[in-house]
Amino acid sequence: MKLQFAPFSSALEAGFWHQLTQKKLNDYRLDESPKSIKGYYYNGDPAGLPTRLTLEFSAFETDGPTPARCCPAMGTLYNTNTLEAFKSTDKKALLDKQAKEIWEAIQSGACLQNPSTLNKFILLTFADLKKYHFYYWFCFPALCFTEGIQIVEEPLLSLGLSAQISALQVAYDNLCIVSKTTAVPYFLTKYSEECVEVAPLHDWKTFFASQKTVTVGVYDPCTLPQHPGWPLRNLLILIANKWGAQLNTVEVLCFRDRTLQGVRSLQHSIIFRVKLPDLSSSTDCPKCVGWEKNQKGAMGPRSVNLSECMDPKRLAESSVDLNLKLMRWRLVPSLDLERVVSTKCLLLGAGTLGCNVARTLMGWGVRHITFVDNAKISYSNPVRQPLYEFEDCLTGGKSKALAAVERMRKIFPGVNAEGFNMSIPMPGHPVNFSEVTLGQARKDVEQLEALISSHDVVFLLMDTRESRWLPTVIAASQRKLIVNAALGFDTFVVMRHGLKRARGESGDSSASSSSCTSASSSSSTPAGPSVPGASLFSNIPGHRLGCYFCNDVVAPGDSTRDRTLDQQCTVSRPGLAMIAGALAVELMVSILQHPEGGYAVASSSDDRMNEPPTSLGLVPHQIRGFLSRFDNVLPASLAFDKCTACSPIVLDNYERDGFRFLSKVFNSSHSFLEDLTGLTLLHQETQAAEVTTAPHTYDEITER
Amino acid sequence: MKLQFAPFSSALEAGFWHQLTQKKLNDYRLDESPKSIKGYYYNGDPAGLPTRLTLEFSAFETDGPTPARCCPAMGTLYNTNTLEAFKSTDKKALLDKQAKEIWEAIQSGACLQNPSTLNKFILLTFADLKKYHFYYWFCFPALCFTEGIQIVEEPLLSLGLSAQISALQVAYDNLCIVSKTTAVPYFLTKYSEECVEVAPLHDWKTFFASQKTVTVGVYDPCTLPQHPGWPLRNLLILIANKWGAQLNTVEVLCFRDRTLQGVRSLQHSIIFRVKLPDLSSSTDCPKCVGWEKNQKGAMGPRSVNLSECMDPKRLAESSVDLNLKLMRWRLVPSLDLERVVSTKCLLLGAGTLGCNVARTLMGWGVRHITFVDNAKISYSNPVRQPLYEFEDCLTGGKSKALAAVERMRKIFPGVNAEGFNMSIPMPGHPVNFSEVTLGQARKDVEQLEALISSHDVVFLLMDTRESRWLPTVIAASQRKLIVNAALGFDTFVVMRHGLKRARGESGDSSASSSSCTSASSSSSTPAGPSVPGASLFSNIPGHRLGCYFCNDVVAPGDSTRDRTLDQQCTVSRPGLAMIAGALAVELMVSILQHPEGGYAVASSSDDRMNEPPTSLGLVPHQIRGFLSRFDNVLPASLAFDKCTACSPIVLDNYERDGFRFLSKVFNSSHSFLEDLTGLTLLHQETQAAEVTTAPHTYDEITER
Repeated sequence: MKLQFAPFSSALEAGFWHQLTQKKLNDYRLDESPKSIKGYYYNGDPAGLPTRLTLEFSAFETDGPTPARCCPAMGTLYNTNTLEAFKSTDKKALLDKQAKEIWEAIQSGACLQNPSTLNKFILLTFADLKKYHFYYWFCFPALCFTEGIQIVEEPLLSLGLSAQISALQVAYDNLCIVSKTTAVPYFLTKYSEECVEVAPLHDWKTFFASQKTVTVGVYDPCTLPQHPGWPLRNLLILIANKWGAQLNTVEVLCFRDRTLQGVRSLQHSIIFRVKLPDLSSSTDCPKCVGWEKNQKGAMGPRSVNLSECMDPKRLAESSVDLNLKLMRWRLVPSLDLERVVSTKCLLLGAGTLGCNVARTLMGWGVRHITFVDNAKISYSNPVRQPLYEFEDCLTGGKSKALAAVERMRKIFPGVNAEGFNMSIPMPGHPVNFSEVTLGQARKDVEQLEALISSHDVVFLLMDTRESRWLPTVIAASQRKLIVNAALGFDTFVVMRHGLKRARGESGDSSASSSSCTSASSSSSTPAGPSVPGASLFSNIPGHRLGCYFCNDVVAPGDSTRDRTLDQQCTVSRPGLAMIAGALAVELMVSILQHPEGGYAVASSSDDRMNEPPTSLGLVPHQIRGFLSRFDNVLPASLAFDKCTACSPIVLDNYERDGFRFLSKVFNSSHSFLEDLTGLTLLHQETQAAEVTTAPHTYDEITER
Repeated sequence: MKLQFAPFSSALEAGFWHQLTQKKLNDYRLDESPKSIKGYYYNGDPAGLPTRLTLEFSAFETDGPTPARCCPAMGTLYNTNTLEAFKSTDKKALLDKQAKEIWEAIQSGACLQNPSTLNKFILLTFADLKKYHFYYWFCFPALCFTEGIQIVEEPLLSLGLSAQISALQVAYDNLCIVSKTTAVPYFLTKYSEECVEVAPLHDWKTFFASQKTVTVGVYDPCTLPQHPGWPLRNLLILIANKWGAQLNTVEVLCFRDRTLQGVRSLQHSIIFRVKLPDLSSSTDCPKCVGWEKNQKGAMGPRSVNLSECMDPKRLAESSVDLNLKLMRWRLVPSLDLERVVSTKCLLLGAGTLGCNVARTLMGWGVRHITFVDNAKISYSNPVRQPLYEFEDCLTGGKSKALAAVERMRKIFPGVNAEGFNMSIPMPGHPVNFSEVTLGQARKDVEQLEALISSHDVVFLLMDTRESRWLPTVIAASQRKLIVNAALGFDTFVVMRHGLKRARGESGDSSASSSSCTSASSSSSTPAGPSVPGASLFSNIPGHRLGCYFCNDVVAPGDSTRDRTLDQQCTVSRPGLAMIAGALAVELMVSILQHPEGGYAVASSSDDRMNEPPTSLGLVPHQIRGFLSRFDNVLPASLAFDKCTACSPIVLDNYERDGFRFLSKVFNSSHSFLEDLTGLTLLHQETQAAEVTTAPHTYDEITER
């Protein structure tokens, strides 16, 4: 009768696939080269279980520990980039290659020193990370005897005397201790009624010197009463090659070591005798088998769909993650995603721009997004403000800031969004009607200060000029990056505000000294009066860039009092807000990828032909877009020393007097800020010199 | 005792406000000049009703009919653009102006010929069309006697004998017939026990020649038993001015003509006698009153909020409408919105691009939007595909095409959206596995042909090159405008395909003749071989522009077979699809605004400094965007005579052999189309000449 072996069943646990996903995403990416992995098998499974080779989470740490009383098996992972490559991989070639390695280790005797060389496996995989669908084919190569192996005696159901069993147990455990492991895969043994001896494989010569009966032990994962498991196969080839000439038969002990109800039992081990062919003179590698059959019992790959057993919310998070990480595989390997994803963004305005900015941020994986708006959703909003629906408009309309948060969570449950239904006090919009209104304004200012302080980037996405004043002042004082977007009918501006140097930092101006102005202290600036709007230079570092108000020679005031219907809402081409919103976020991301962040030198249109400063491209000061020409220009301009928002004197007053200063601005007309900053004087001088300048006082851009 | 008058209560019906909304939106826009409107009043109201002056839907048709048995009152509408202007309007000045006109008509005697000149009113309004909130103030000017008017006899509760009443009724009805109206506002009357006579105002002299008692009749809207309504006031001034010198007293008949339970009754009319001052020598305009009190009984405007009583869905529709129409008020008066709104758009692909295109279309008011997609929504989609939410991904994911429609309706119930969960057969993706697959492909082709036929514009928004082939062929054959958008990592192309001339139209090439190629027949093209990609010329008319495949020298095939994960989905910067989607729609709108539509000459980057061809700007062939440089270029290129999609030979084969031809393309490799179009030959020639050209075979754009 021919000896038959129970093949391994691959047991690939969910943890293995999760770890493979992470490795593929973060380490391997497009690398298809073979990777070392480690599985293990156990000889203590109860009857009925298949002969398993288990791969779990730890499989990728080949130097890591193996579970106690399990044998490690070293494997090679071939993870392909495409299903097509998975299918077309030459499986025979992989198997032959592995077989040859084993055969060489047998011939060279390396196996004797390191018997686990006999236990090698191959795992071919394709991980469809978009669908959480994994394709795999497992192979445990076994070299074969051409004619098979003849059993001389039928396998014994159990060992002989219980004294022998105890002795074997003790001897094996000792071998393990000597071998510094908890499971030795192969061993030599000899026994009499009184004693059992055990030795490692490489002791063959001395151990069996005087012995007629040769018994080899194998740590056997099989639970079948009549058959050994797969690990025995390559051992028998080894013996046939090494000692086949001397031996007639070999006795095999399939060592099975169960623990039943807390009691250890070797009773299920089996012993039998086989007749081995003599392979001592063979040099050709024997035939090899080993690819696992699939669930249908046919030769073919298996697949597993993990999406079904995952928490949908976690699945959503990892899917979003995946899409982002794919960027790093080939296109932008240097992309610092964490820098983007962890950025806390404050969106002032949850209208057309706010909704589009929020959606783009979510696309970039930004998790922390806070909305501030005091408006309610009206019927005309949903078709242009992509976080709202018709239902949100009913019975007076939901608060935009709160509804935006609701929607964000519906889109992506992993988002950390918050909404504040509040007003932003504005210059020229008095708050001193009563104690109540004044108190409310104070609260609003404090709230805004706290919000800006707890975020990294502030987006200005409102529909009036004057509402941008207070956050501009606060964020400038707190040295927070501001990204500002404003729409005209078919034009837009997206800009980063200059980021003031930290207080006390050396270098030029603009931070806290009111006597030293940024324009006049610059060595690259030609001498002469600092005329607003005329300061267009290249190579302006981030801390010397202007803000939204720097180009204006009129202080912000109440622009809403007398606006016609088409001026009340920003009448713009519907595509404009999507473009500007998207660009505002992309600008932020590009800036975050720059090592100097908001201090980076501003790129200009001229830099388009040069080497970009970051892997994502340019970091301009402003993007001014003209939809009618499908054109963008990238102007850069210096901070204006008489700016009504970011000039040193305004920041000084704000930092010294706080709300007392701010409330003066709210309650006063233009002239207060203009007097303070010196604009009034400038006006007079300008008039005296009869120079006509067209002040920019609207969100609308009309120049060029 | 002094005579007191019941003032008019303005009764402004919802229909009036709706019509005002329409007028403001479509006609008046920012025009604040006074407008003529018409109201009416009735003398048959039952007791208890206020003295109403009614303005309804018809108020703006001053030449239109007045309801039967009602008196018209001509008014002047002052509709302001802002609430501020409404508030600050000088009400006294308006009243004085109107009073002066009435006084002049009295003095000149014009009132005698046209007594309705005495019944003038003023309506001051501000319509907040965003909120459906209307502010108004009504004024019915009445000239006053400085000392008031003395009643000589108490008002009679009813007329005398019933015979007199019948006679009055007959006489008044006859006067109406003679006057060609159903209600005469003022008349003269004299009566005895036997008869009642009635005459128009201008007959005074002859009618009252021998009369001692003068009786004037006024069509009286008042229902109070002791008081006349407002219309009597200016009549008394007229009489005092014209005949005050001769008269001592005047008898007044307040003519009230109710119908009670089907029976006409004048019983509620009242008669009294008043003593009139003599104003015959007055030249100064008397003092005037007339501004209506508000609901609180104080002098002030009223307001009405119609949003609450409107159907929310209609409200949403008119709000969306409003936002669009505002563009025409000031910015683009020539914008043909109807042309945009009525365009039927077919979106092939409901992924990142499809969702963004759909949202922009909705922003433009496009109502008819159809989606085609065969994919299901996966967990990574919602953060980048703005028509889907987390819930849509559960249990395998909803069909994108159907979920997109659901969402569109939730955003705007007025949309007419439809979704088709279907595949588009592709070159190199065989369909001849079985009768079933072949039959399905035939159905899919027929479905796509029918869809393209029933739409005006086809958007190609898929994620593979080859899926764009079939719709390109069908739409080219059907002469439908195609707008195509494709993404790279940080680059995109948005383009319109050349729109072939209608069959049989004269002019050059490219429509149906396969012997005459577009490149070689053009007089503006230099002689020489037509090299793909090299045909960049200015002034290319729409019918000679290339399609997406014209720049390629390789036929489309199965590009999905061997793509790695990062190639399977379009890995792109999240803002990119929003920008490209928005631009695709804006390009469509600009083309629709061009008088030649898809046949318009392509604008190029060089045209940016020239006068734009439409009020919205340029109509380029392609917009190629580079996010890393925040730059767009506008190349234009000629149709390629060997194009695998739009060349005459491909269209001829499709039009002649239909599905038989298409299935050959689906089932064959590249070479079939390349042989057909002559590309194979071109390759050989090119290789022979040792010219290296880099074919474009990916969606990714790398050139500039």
